[in-house]
Amino acid sequence: MLAERINRLTSSLVRDILAAASSPGVTSFAGGLPAEHALFVPDLAALPAGALAGALQYGPSEGEPALREQVAAMLSAQGLPCTAGQVLILNGSQQGIDLVAKLAIEPGRRVLVESPTYLAALQSFRLFGAELDGWGSDEGMPPAGRLEKGLRTDTRLTYLNPTFQNPSGACYSHSERQALAAELDCHSLIVFEDDPYRDLAYDTPAPPPLVSHLQQAPWVYQGSFSKILAPGLRLGYLVAHPALFPHLLRLKQAADLHSNRLSQILVCDALQTGKLPAHLARILPVYRARRDAMADSLQRHLGDLARWQLPAGGLFFWLTLAERCDTMALMRDLLKEDRVAIMPGEPFFAVPDARSCIRLNFSHADAGQIDAGVARLAGRLRTLLCH
Amino acid sequence: MLAERINRLTSSLVRDILAAASSPGVTSFAGGLPAEHALFVPDLAALPAGALAGALQYGPSEGEPALREQVAAMLSAQGLPCTAGQVLILNGSQQGIDLVAKLAIEPGRRVLVESPTYLAALQSFRLFGAELDGWGSDEGMPPAGRLEKGLRTDTRLTYLNPTFQNPSGACYSHSERQALAAELDCHSLIVFEDDPYRDLAYDTPAPPPLVSHLQQAPWVYQGSFSKILAPGLRLGYLVAHPALFPHLLRLKQAADLHSNRLSQILVCDALQTGKLPAHLARILPVYRARRDAMADSLQRHLGDLARWQLPAGGLFFWLTLAERCDTMALMRDLLKEDRVAIMPGEPFFAVPDARSCIRLNFSHADAGQIDAGVARLAGRLRTLLCH
Repeated sequence: MLAERINRLTSSLVRDILAAASSPGVTSFAGGLPAEHALFVPDLAALPAGALAGALQYGPSEGEPALREQVAAMLSAQGLPCTAGQVLILNGSQQGIDLVAKLAIEPGRRVLVESPTYLAALQSFRLFGAELDGWGSDEGMPPAGRLEKGLRTDTRLTYLNPTFQNPSGACYSHSERQALAAELDCHSLIVFEDDPYRDLAYDTPAPPPLVSHLQQAPWVYQGSFSKILAPGLRLGYLVAHPALFPHLLRLKQAADLHSNRLSQILVCDALQTGKLPAHLARILPVYRARRDAMADSLQRHLGDLARWQLPAGGLFFWLTLAERCDTMALMRDLLKEDRVAIMPGEPFFAVPDARSCIRLNFSHADAGQIDAGVARLAGRLRTLLCH
Repeated sequence: MLAERINRLTSSLVRDILAAASSPGVTSFAGGLPAEHALFVPDLAALPAGALAGALQYGPSEGEPALREQVAAMLSAQGLPCTAGQVLILNGSQQGIDLVAKLAIEPGRRVLVESPTYLAALQSFRLFGAELDGWGSDEGMPPAGRLEKGLRTDTRLTYLNPTFQNPSGACYSHSERQALAAELDCHSLIVFEDDPYRDLAYDTPAPPPLVSHLQQAPWVYQGSFSKILAPGLRLGYLVAHPALFPHLLRLKQAADLHSNRLSQILVCDALQTGKLPAHLARILPVYRARRDAMADSLQRHLGDLARWQLPAGGLFFWLTLAERCDTMALMRDLLKEDRVAIMPGEPFFAVPDARSCIRLNFSHADAGQIDAGVARLAGRLRTLLCH
């Protein structure tokens, strides 16, 4: 009596890893968790009088008007001109993935994604019955060329994470975004850009969103406050092409009426009073230092066992192992024997890939934990490769 | 390039009515809104030290463990024995409807609902492609008999609101619940009981949930804190048969990872410290008085134009008009000319119904506004019937 889609609900492996990673004494390189001391603590006492009382009744499905204005201004300043009327407030950007899947996916629909890409997007698209095509394996070719190879005439949606991608850390240049957008404009599909890491730029600011270069294709762009303020607030946003916005708004209403109002007023206050940029200025040096610490540790312990790029932003290193290896077994042994949690690469691939990869988060553990954890990872990997 | 389901997204009529109903100067009988002064104002300062800081990181998809324990204890005390492991915390119970629709509905699936029933459930079931069958029109027959008439061999889900139903206000007796459960146990379907109004009982406590009488059928039961604390907190819960719970948990994870943690600690505190029963003891007399005021006003102004039952709980009167009438036109004229908002009955029917009905909420307006609003409704209805 269950719907067919329930057979497509993938295993809870990732849930299990993340749950194990939060056990006491485990060094977690697994999730995309902010450092505990980098979480934004809202100052409830500083809220205007009556702000809480005004947030207790049912609210608009679109989100709080003042927060929508703040988001539109922020995105316009980042190079994506938009109005508050195009902004929909979400319970974190995972909800945007659910809404866009409802908007555009039904069984058999072809969806083109980067491969590797964000695993929870793959899970959601598969749940709705998508047939996934992946692109991104020919590392010598520019993104537009790789995209073109993956595009089929019946592709109706593409999901892109052009800025400090999860898991690869890749960031497309300004000209690569222009070329990709021009290519996408030639096809009849929806472009869905997921951009939760934009503000976590450690070297130079990220180029404007890819969708800002589109002339024809309808698009949805989304971001999140989870990585730059606090995930527990469960707040993200999307902004959509005017042709798509009314559908997404109705889907949001059907999903849960509206987002949490208390979180909305807290985040709106953080934007209105300049607390967000101040918080970012405080956490960016912490994350940059952890990234650099992990780069050093990787070079020292794993230089002969894997290759990687230094990520210019975001939260992850993506390692391609020099030899084929069962990364699921590596993950299990490492967690059990060494109390270190990593993410195997397999779940991030839309289509099977010959490479053995792992993803390492650098934001949650401190420099000492990072070095000790990477050393244990190297030891475990050597043990596994000898057998 | 949109999914077929987008064609089934019903019109935004209800959104428009509810938006108009919140305009200044409008007396709203439209939504199921708590009275402004009956909203629970959380005492943020009274939270244990560190409670807020502990709610900023990612949390479990199931919900906060302490809140799940509180909900399980509360439901067990109400006659539905369950464990915390069966409880899933939701962003309001609208989310439970979305999750159960994903669990059990695909295009062409037959779903049996009471008719009339909660319109947003109908919208969500239709979005997922359900073919709806309705039961409940033969008012002289007991519920089990009426149900049996609507059941088809290919019905795989039934959605029930046995306690102070929205919109009808009906409440099944203990023996009617037993008989209905016995009938449902003979069929291969999922029983979905939606119970947001249980605690708003003005005369006698409601009988235990219908699903507590099931022996065979898998079930999902859900409730909400929106009507008894505050809708802006966006918090509800479901409890499910162990065979269904793991699927619902994964669907929740795919939908938005987890619910807002700040609201969860506030509601958990209200349950742990006895603030919820104290708040209920304060608001029940207010709502009882408003129900009785509306009953008086209806009798005085509309006694010859409609019939209704006094609701023993919940938030609504359901009026069947004595003469056929275009209730959409009534709604529009009343809002425009008299600044009174009501809900026409049509959207609550799963299948077209010959009766002309309207739903009136009695919790939001005060007694004076209720009497003036009902008088204007009566006048407008007489005008309409004369044309």
